[in-house]
Amino acid sequence: MNKLVIIACVLLSCMGAAKAQDLKSPNGRLSMRFSLEKDGSPSYSLSYKGKPVIKPSKMGFELKTKTADAASGGSDANMEQKTANLQGSLHNNFTVAGTKTAAFNETWNPVWGEVKTIRNHYNELAVTLHQKGTARQMVVRFRLFDDGLGFRYEFPTQKNLTYFVIKEEKTQFAMAGDHTAYWIAGDYDTQEYDYTTSKLSEIRGIMAKAVTANISQTPFSPTGVQTSLMMKSADGLYINLHEAALIDYPVMHLNLDDRNFVFESWLTPDAVGDKGYMQAPRSTPWRTVIVSDDARDILASKMTYNLNEPSKIKDPSWIKPTKYVGVWWEMITGMSNWSYTNDYPSVELGVTDYTKAKPHGKHGANNANVKKYIDFAAKHGFDGVLVEGWNIGWEDWFGNSKDYVFDFVTPYPDFDVKEIREYAKAKGVKMIMHHETSSSVRNYERHMDKAYQFMKDNGYDAVKSGYVGDILPRGENHYSQWIVNHYQYAIEKAADYKIMVNAHEAVRPTGTARTWPNLISNESARGTEYQSFGGSKPNHVTVLPFTRLIGGPMDYTPGIFEMDLSKLNPDNKSHVNSTLANQLALYLTMYSPLQMAADLPENYDRFPDAFQFIKDVAVDWDDSNYLEAEPGEFVTVARKAKGTGQWFLGSVGGNDARTSNIRLDFLDKGKTYIATIYADAKGAHYKTNPQAYQIRKVVVNNKSKLSQWVAPGGGYAISFVEADKNQAKGLPRL
Amino acid sequence: MNKLVIIACVLLSCMGAAKAQDLKSPNGRLSMRFSLEKDGSPSYSLSYKGKPVIKPSKMGFELKTKTADAASGGSDANMEQKTANLQGSLHNNFTVAGTKTAAFNETWNPVWGEVKTIRNHYNELAVTLHQKGTARQMVVRFRLFDDGLGFRYEFPTQKNLTYFVIKEEKTQFAMAGDHTAYWIAGDYDTQEYDYTTSKLSEIRGIMAKAVTANISQTPFSPTGVQTSLMMKSADGLYINLHEAALIDYPVMHLNLDDRNFVFESWLTPDAVGDKGYMQAPRSTPWRTVIVSDDARDILASKMTYNLNEPSKIKDPSWIKPTKYVGVWWEMITGMSNWSYTNDYPSVELGVTDYTKAKPHGKHGANNANVKKYIDFAAKHGFDGVLVEGWNIGWEDWFGNSKDYVFDFVTPYPDFDVKEIREYAKAKGVKMIMHHETSSSVRNYERHMDKAYQFMKDNGYDAVKSGYVGDILPRGENHYSQWIVNHYQYAIEKAADYKIMVNAHEAVRPTGTARTWPNLISNESARGTEYQSFGGSKPNHVTVLPFTRLIGGPMDYTPGIFEMDLSKLNPDNKSHVNSTLANQLALYLTMYSPLQMAADLPENYDRFPDAFQFIKDVAVDWDDSNYLEAEPGEFVTVARKAKGTGQWFLGSVGGNDARTSNIRLDFLDKGKTYIATIYADAKGAHYKTNPQAYQIRKVVVNNKSKLSQWVAPGGGYAISFVEADKNQAKGLPRL
Repeated sequence: MNKLVIIACVLLSCMGAAKAQDLKSPNGRLSMRFSLEKDGSPSYSLSYKGKPVIKPSKMGFELKTKTADAASGGSDANMEQKTANLQGSLHNNFTVAGTKTAAFNETWNPVWGEVKTIRNHYNELAVTLHQKGTARQMVVRFRLFDDGLGFRYEFPTQKNLTYFVIKEEKTQFAMAGDHTAYWIAGDYDTQEYDYTTSKLSEIRGIMAKAVTANISQTPFSPTGVQTSLMMKSADGLYINLHEAALIDYPVMHLNLDDRNFVFESWLTPDAVGDKGYMQAPRSTPWRTVIVSDDARDILASKMTYNLNEPSKIKDPSWIKPTKYVGVWWEMITGMSNWSYTNDYPSVELGVTDYTKAKPHGKHGANNANVKKYIDFAAKHGFDGVLVEGWNIGWEDWFGNSKDYVFDFVTPYPDFDVKEIREYAKAKGVKMIMHHETSSSVRNYERHMDKAYQFMKDNGYDAVKSGYVGDILPRGENHYSQWIVNHYQYAIEKAADYKIMVNAHEAVRPTGTARTWPNLISNESARGTEYQSFGGSKPNHVTVLPFTRLIGGPMDYTPGIFEMDLSKLNPDNKSHVNSTLANQLALYLTMYSPLQMAADLPENYDRFPDAFQFIKDVAVDWDDSNYLEAEPGEFVTVARKAKGTGQWFLGSVGGNDARTSNIRLDFLDKGKTYIATIYADAKGAHYKTNPQAYQIRKVVVNNKSKLSQWVAPGGGYAISFVEADKNQAKGLPRL
Repeated sequence: MNKLVIIACVLLSCMGAAKAQDLKSPNGRLSMRFSLEKDGSPSYSLSYKGKPVIKPSKMGFELKTKTADAASGGSDANMEQKTANLQGSLHNNFTVAGTKTAAFNETWNPVWGEVKTIRNHYNELAVTLHQKGTARQMVVRFRLFDDGLGFRYEFPTQKNLTYFVIKEEKTQFAMAGDHTAYWIAGDYDTQEYDYTTSKLSEIRGIMAKAVTANISQTPFSPTGVQTSLMMKSADGLYINLHEAALIDYPVMHLNLDDRNFVFESWLTPDAVGDKGYMQAPRSTPWRTVIVSDDARDILASKMTYNLNEPSKIKDPSWIKPTKYVGVWWEMITGMSNWSYTNDYPSVELGVTDYTKAKPHGKHGANNANVKKYIDFAAKHGFDGVLVEGWNIGWEDWFGNSKDYVFDFVTPYPDFDVKEIREYAKAKGVKMIMHHETSSSVRNYERHMDKAYQFMKDNGYDAVKSGYVGDILPRGENHYSQWIVNHYQYAIEKAADYKIMVNAHEAVRPTGTARTWPNLISNESARGTEYQSFGGSKPNHVTVLPFTRLIGGPMDYTPGIFEMDLSKLNPDNKSHVNSTLANQLALYLTMYSPLQMAADLPENYDRFPDAFQFIKDVAVDWDDSNYLEAEPGEFVTVARKAKGTGQWFLGSVGGNDARTSNIRLDFLDKGKTYIATIYADAKGAHYKTNPQAYQIRKVVVNNKSKLSQWVAPGGGYAISFVEADKNQAKGLPRL
């Protein structure tokens, strides 16, 4: 049901300082105010249950001034140039030309998701601003939900502002105090830092340590941080800053004035330092503030999706939540390699003859090994098998700013596309394609049509893409407008081919999967692979749901059972900072319609009882209940599988041991369940004793309460199966 | 016949200052010397008949030093980085590890050209250099022809130099004196300046005036000039500096040390200031010096083609020299427009609805007008009709840094692709496609496959492409490696579709049409359109054959009969600085297998006798004879049409009147011809009396001599038809 009610349309005649405009959320808990300051600067503020969330904060843009070239119908040497004389300031001198308020209340059903039905319920305020002296018009549109505020800038068709270049977006988020923040360094090229918890005032001092080495990285400010940024105020408010519907616009970072605790938007520049090329009519992405005094509400918020457009894929029947295994962790840990030979330090595709190369013998993507994974997937009911390193070019793929680095269609000699295709088909398993681009973006676009067609010809319906290393074209960054545009291009073109996309190292999601649900997952944060590159903090997975997952699902690749990686590769001294039970819980706490069982088949074979949970757990849901949540500490969520009605529960802890106390009141009334609880055993510890787990079966119903110890870096997972009395017989009640 | 003889292979054992290596051209007139200076800097020099052409000049590169990222098999967060510690200097500290000389003599037949057969005859010297301390290897390969020298740098596969970045190429061309140069300002984005004739020492003082306004321009130095650069020495040598086989490398400009008259290579940088990304094994383009004491030899030189690889198009039967008319000059002069409506200052392709637009009534590419051109082409025997402005997007196509500016497949409402296709087909005329990219290069590549397929589906075999305005991606330039790579990509992809390419504003040609003969022409210099944008110098067309045409044909679009452009458009005060007879001569002197009759049909209808020459003249040749040549002054050439044996002759003059005295000894022995001479009439003048021409028929043979007056900015053209005695009867003998 789509219901839009325009409540009021006020055309103000006073052209001086306009009176403030107030708006309340549907349930009245959030209220915001828009006003113009004396100099005509737009300003907004937000409060939750009377507590300030955003103090009065300025809005607007600094534009690039230029002498515009003559436009219409010019020839290739039309010497005439008009002086457009665009003034730079688009952040003051405004008057309010009109305001409109509206209420909106609808529900919609996502193609995949944590819940079956999402309510999109907000009150809206649109303020039309006229700038004195330039006759330029800008609309600021606020949507106030019960869980937060979204606002964006809109530039209607107008005479004096058609094409323009943003020098700086000057949107402020003035915090009400020195909040605790869960942050990673702002960076134009990586989102893969470990999170730091600190006061806002401490960021500057910690920054140097927080910017750890990365393959491609461009930090920009000692107080610059990334969104989605999670904070907690001293008076108990949970506040999240992010953006929604990032389409053809640079990523917004936040730069902190740490004396006043005021964040200001900091857009990712392009190769020449500009921060946004705009053509009216046009809107910016939404700037979002999610807020509650209950951390669980932040996790349950669907505001980011609600601020995106409905799906543009009319028949999404080909989009299928997927649980998969893959030839991947063995390369990540250094057991095997993506490359095929050591003969060629310099590969030229189409010239280098791999049939004459001496294999180095560690190539993971060989027929026999891939078939082993297919067999494993078939035996245990996985939907798909990812294979990385199947295509030629990996000998010199990285770090060389190499343009023509992959062609995405030519396999190594030991990977027989047709043979694998037929084998997988016979086993009822879907192959998952891998397109590492090495960030050579033009090269990927040049080959994209053929690569996607090759996928369809060979039975691949999903692709994992990757953007490792510095971006080509040189000078652009991973999150600049040009490249954001590319990621979106790849998703839309994939949709033309009915291909699902799981993009790694691409821009962090901002809910655009509502519009393009074939974007079934993203990496865009520090994933499990970092456990093999020196490790991540034990509480990492208690932060990600509050930050990275706000914009969409993450291909976190959980399910590691062997934490001592030297057992896989003696040269790898990394340790996975997680207990085995914690790994199981991640299938619930790190929501994604695409979930990997990332470890090696042989490691799963060692722990078949624990592996059973990964086999059982669903990847698509009718309902989700966040039972416990505190960023950096713990997340506990119960989810009801789509269609089957079966419940699963996951709980992850942080650095220290804790006891989780929950009520199972989410379970269906009147039903009896057998709960299989996969938990840390006594003495379990992410570092010293990660594989100590216990599995017990108990009988429960929706009156049951559970008290469960969680190890440092630990967690627990539960599957609930409805049972009749006979089945429950002999099992203890909880 | 391909004949390569290795004459000698000398491995030098002395690792100190190597003795000089000398090489002579096949006829012995040119000789060169390679040597190492005391500090191990490579150096070369060149002389012609004992006169110095290039004094000892240094060679080599400054490389970008970097800490290379770890390469093989790294993962997306492989933290390990190796310090490559590449030293920057690749221009000294060399020893000669070996030299090879060879002789080469073959002939080959171009797909199209000025002559039927081209001789590729040179002596070669390849010097293998080892750099002390770095163990890096570089080969300098010299090819010495009778008409000049080509040399390039080669980087064989080696351990210490695989991927590297060029900071500066340091190739010098030390002139022997303060030569007269025919130059345009070095610029990363335009080649469309008017030429200046001055001493080398005068360049700096004139530069500011020489850099006239252009739509996209990036001059870089007060003594920077473009290649191909033509010079004349005080002792009568004609010297041309250019490059050959520019593939995936930045364009070379020349920067002059005007105290010592030493040019140094100045590569076009990319967005981050780098000047070349290299992967061994790899070669640079050839640096070329064409030299003679007879200016005609410069024009007749095929050295630039000879330094390119043979054709990669195995069956070139679809590549056809073409004479065409087009809906073009009317837009260039402002009579009509590319755009369709004034309703939309901001077009969004796929959203903007042109069917609802009010046409402004000046859209040139409408069905009726296009049919008029098709009728005209059919009536007068032209092969093709070009139509610009047929596709949507021209309302805001330029100057806005607009990414998605054209889709190349959607026509305006008044241009019916199918109707035009059928109409042209019925009339036996080929349509010529137009792809203006607005320099939005990524957008063009994204649409290229569909655009080329659309062409084939609709009977178009040739495309005129355009790159007006600043390049997208921003920060790149028209001649940087990234964009040079794009132009080549477009040509090769067009070849896949059997499409001929005529690229405007693209990189100046360097003989690559030998390898990809579907590149049938280029603009890449100041074309006839500038006559409508304020005019070009009257002697412009006497310089272009010595400069721009060295690398390949130009789509100069001659054939303007109405020089007073206010008669076409009262607002256009430009005057075409050429006589009508000069316009006819251009079909010979501006060699191209693609020739336009650029004026309006109604202007040709006014001068049917003169127009007859344009109808008659061939566009492909079995032989060419340059009879007179002096840069800036005059060019006279006779050409024998391919297959028919018919001769044509064209002669253009410069700023002042002159008398051309030539022998017709190129004509076939023993044959009698009726020569129809289209010449300036008495009193003709490019400015005051451009349409004063006279046509006379005379009987000639290969003993005949012609003395012909040429007006300022004038010229003459002759068609020779073999005649029997009866036909010649009554006509005067010359």
